[in-house]
Amino acid sequence: MQRSASSRPALLFDLDGTLVDSVYQHVLAWREALETEGFHLSVWRIHRRIGMSGGLFLKALVRELGHSLTDEQAERLQKAHAEGFVQRMDQVRPLPGARELLSTLTAMNVRWAIATSGSDKTAAGALALLAIPKGTPIITRDQVAYAKPNPDLFLAAAAHLGHAPADCFVVGDSVWDLLAARRAGSLGIGLLSGGYGKEELEMAGAYRVYGDPAELLTHLDELGIRAGE
Amino acid sequence: MQRSASSRPALLFDLDGTLVDSVYQHVLAWREALETEGFHLSVWRIHRRIGMSGGLFLKALVRELGHSLTDEQAERLQKAHAEGFVQRMDQVRPLPGARELLSTLTAMNVRWAIATSGSDKTAAGALALLAIPKGTPIITRDQVAYAKPNPDLFLAAAAHLGHAPADCFVVGDSVWDLLAARRAGSLGIGLLSGGYGKEELEMAGAYRVYGDPAELLTHLDELGIRAGE
Repeated sequence: MQRSASSRPALLFDLDGTLVDSVYQHVLAWREALETEGFHLSVWRIHRRIGMSGGLFLKALVRELGHSLTDEQAERLQKAHAEGFVQRMDQVRPLPGARELLSTLTAMNVRWAIATSGSDKTAAGALALLAIPKGTPIITRDQVAYAKPNPDLFLAAAAHLGHAPADCFVVGDSVWDLLAARRAGSLGIGLLSGGYGKEELEMAGAYRVYGDPAELLTHLDELGIRAGE
Repeated sequence: MQRSASSRPALLFDLDGTLVDSVYQHVLAWREALETEGFHLSVWRIHRRIGMSGGLFLKALVRELGHSLTDEQAERLQKAHAEGFVQRMDQVRPLPGARELLSTLTAMNVRWAIATSGSDKTAAGALALLAIPKGTPIITRDQVAYAKPNPDLFLAAAAHLGHAPADCFVVGDSVWDLLAARRAGSLGIGLLSGGYGKEELEMAGAYRVYGDPAELLTHLDELGIRAGE
């Protein structure tokens, strides 16, 4: 594919751990759901799976526990996780700089969208915290066949914006975001705010890594995003 | 310092995140304590400080929040964290393989000790879960002037065992363990079970990195620890 002269990039944001400080609530909701079904998995192993598709999470779980799951168990686990997470939403806060970053991009005429492996149900509270403007493309797991690390969520978000994926940066906190970005043909920007280390995000393909949305906001120049274009 | 022929190494273990799955409970107890005092810090920033001295944790907090703390606030925060952690002890489990690793070392006549930045109060529940044999050296923050990343805890543990620090491996899950190991003159072994990434632990000086105590147990050969010596 031939590249044309650079056009103004769009930004495709992950939600949990990237714009809202919700990763640890997801971890605890999964842990509680698993313990209710009699499965004991170390907390760090759950943490490392947050952001990937729930179905793949359960497949990884089967491998790590050496158990198999019935379809009914898998469904009960996903339902219990969603309920446990919604119950913890009152502890979830926007990450520092998240609202300012989004409103600055809008003011700069930089297009952006949100693409999350979460469902409409688990994403609703976080989206409300961010005061997302009407008309913003929000792609959830309910709208695509496969969630991350498949590229579908980011491809759908780019299509909604009318941008080629190569003209988009994906911003995410987990290796699943960065792997999905590579499959989509977008460059990935890593944030440490989901709890992964810098080196881990770089090894998964991050083009740059920042602490949180506040730090990304003050480094937009490093992505070649200029005011007044 | 001239090295003599290799003697049988001793192992100095960190506690939280290394032998018991308690890091996330510490994180949440700190978060709750901080919010009660009106401080809002992203959860990942708290996570990255677990395992270091509580006093240094609060100094880092001052830097990250740009606030200063009164002595009374610092004392209230430390007390609230300890109480919040003890309340969550019922959710804490031994990490996979922790008890088997310790009993195997004992059966192999390999000396070991525990050295934790935690206090006697916060460590008690975790030590009970592990069924530590009587007479095991347990060094807590209450017994030394400075906790990790200062080397004092590991130096005291090595002295209790009558081993030179250079003849000890330090086993820990956080960069603070590995930095303290380097200052003590011991080699550090990293475990992923506290939530740090492999690369992060290697960059902090880990000689080897394993997933959890169960994986370390099946790789004792890589540390040059042989049965029947």
